[in-house]
Amino acid sequence: MEVKIIPIRGIPVPVKPGDDIAKLICEAAERQGTPLLDGDILVVSQKIVSKACGHIFRLSEVKPSEEAVKISRILEKSPELVEIILRETNRIVRLKNKHIICETKHGFVCANAGVDVSNVDGGLSAVTLPLDPDKEASKIRETVKKMKGVDIAVIISDTHGRAFRRGQVNVAIGVAGMKPLRDRRGERDLFGYILKFKFIAIVDEIASAAELVMGQADEGVPAAIIRGLRYERDESASIKDLVMSPEEDLFR
Amino acid sequence: MEVKIIPIRGIPVPVKPGDDIAKLICEAAERQGTPLLDGDILVVSQKIVSKACGHIFRLSEVKPSEEAVKISRILEKSPELVEIILRETNRIVRLKNKHIICETKHGFVCANAGVDVSNVDGGLSAVTLPLDPDKEASKIRETVKKMKGVDIAVIISDTHGRAFRRGQVNVAIGVAGMKPLRDRRGERDLFGYILKFKFIAIVDEIASAAELVMGQADEGVPAAIIRGLRYERDESASIKDLVMSPEEDLFR
Repeated sequence: MEVKIIPIRGIPVPVKPGDDIAKLICEAAERQGTPLLDGDILVVSQKIVSKACGHIFRLSEVKPSEEAVKISRILEKSPELVEIILRETNRIVRLKNKHIICETKHGFVCANAGVDVSNVDGGLSAVTLPLDPDKEASKIRETVKKMKGVDIAVIISDTHGRAFRRGQVNVAIGVAGMKPLRDRRGERDLFGYILKFKFIAIVDEIASAAELVMGQADEGVPAAIIRGLRYERDESASIKDLVMSPEEDLFR
Repeated sequence: MEVKIIPIRGIPVPVKPGDDIAKLICEAAERQGTPLLDGDILVVSQKIVSKACGHIFRLSEVKPSEEAVKISRILEKSPELVEIILRETNRIVRLKNKHIICETKHGFVCANAGVDVSNVDGGLSAVTLPLDPDKEASKIRETVKKMKGVDIAVIISDTHGRAFRRGQVNVAIGVAGMKPLRDRRGERDLFGYILKFKFIAIVDEIASAAELVMGQADEGVPAAIIRGLRYERDESASIKDLVMSPEEDLFR
């Protein structure tokens, strides 16, 4: 039983606010001869979801707060960009090496609250994470179901740095239709040992697998299909299952 | 251009000290009709590598140090197991929730220094990480080249917890034949923005992708092939490229 990772090419980028990305993805997948099938997992880059949601702010129109100005001086970052980052932030974890490590309103700990800089539309803009990535994943899932009659799972992915290890990897920031963690407790491992703690963050592994084809093209490919992987359906899936409290976090 | 993740089933487990796992893997891959090909990436579970290396210690034969006894009382862990963990450890990062978070001799920060418990051989044993996982990856790569005449990359994978996110994922602890990081600096992203910082930990993403098929079987599958992914060859590849100093670590 092999698993396939299929890049979806030919999605018209840059995506514009209001674009129906579920439709754009379905059409591109069909044009390249790999239409979405029942049981597929569709991984979509956060970047196009945020853009379609209109979460884009022209920096020249942002009025930075006093705090943003203060932090911008420490980090040598534009005060307008810092202002956008702070608006997305629950709590500043650390200022380090020109980055603000933030806990976002969703509970994710990442650099610059996941805010990306864009210069697609002439003039520098900031693109922020979707307000509710699970809901955006659900909307894509529902649209695909309505348009094509297929039942898929959807993951919204973003690129994050990690503690302790160099290099970034893609992780899931939103999910619909599948359980985000696989509970392996009670199973035997390769040593015959019955596992006591093991939960696998399968949606993060899927996001990472998808990045292998999404990041490889010169301009990037904003979506990929994972095909042939059995997964546990979950109609009320939420990425909140992956948000860890400081108390249970072994590494904080 | 799609990428395939192919589990290699039928590798005779438990692997025994001295077993030639490159040979066992090649034979199993051929039996199932998916022999290794030029350009494949072979992902091998640390567990069988350590076992083949003979890094297995019967707990009843271990003499715990005073420090091990002291820590074992705090964590409600066996003093013999703590002793084995301490022997693998450069530096204890934290004691928390019955776990010792360690920096291993390789520089990896992980729970219990990557030591696994096994009860395959009657009586509880501890299995430790390979001393030099890059070297073990190279040995497998060389043996496959000699036996089958194919040039592959090899990744040794292990399951790690992370800071900030619930659930474990597979990461690379050893590599041979490919660059572990992909340098995306200078490329344009989906927003047309020229990337300034982006290094992708591609070997970790590959290890995670492989886990999707390795962890799915009841007893686990100890190896998988990633096929169809272009990668940058590197004859002197080392996982040390992923070990991050505290100074550059944004999250510490």
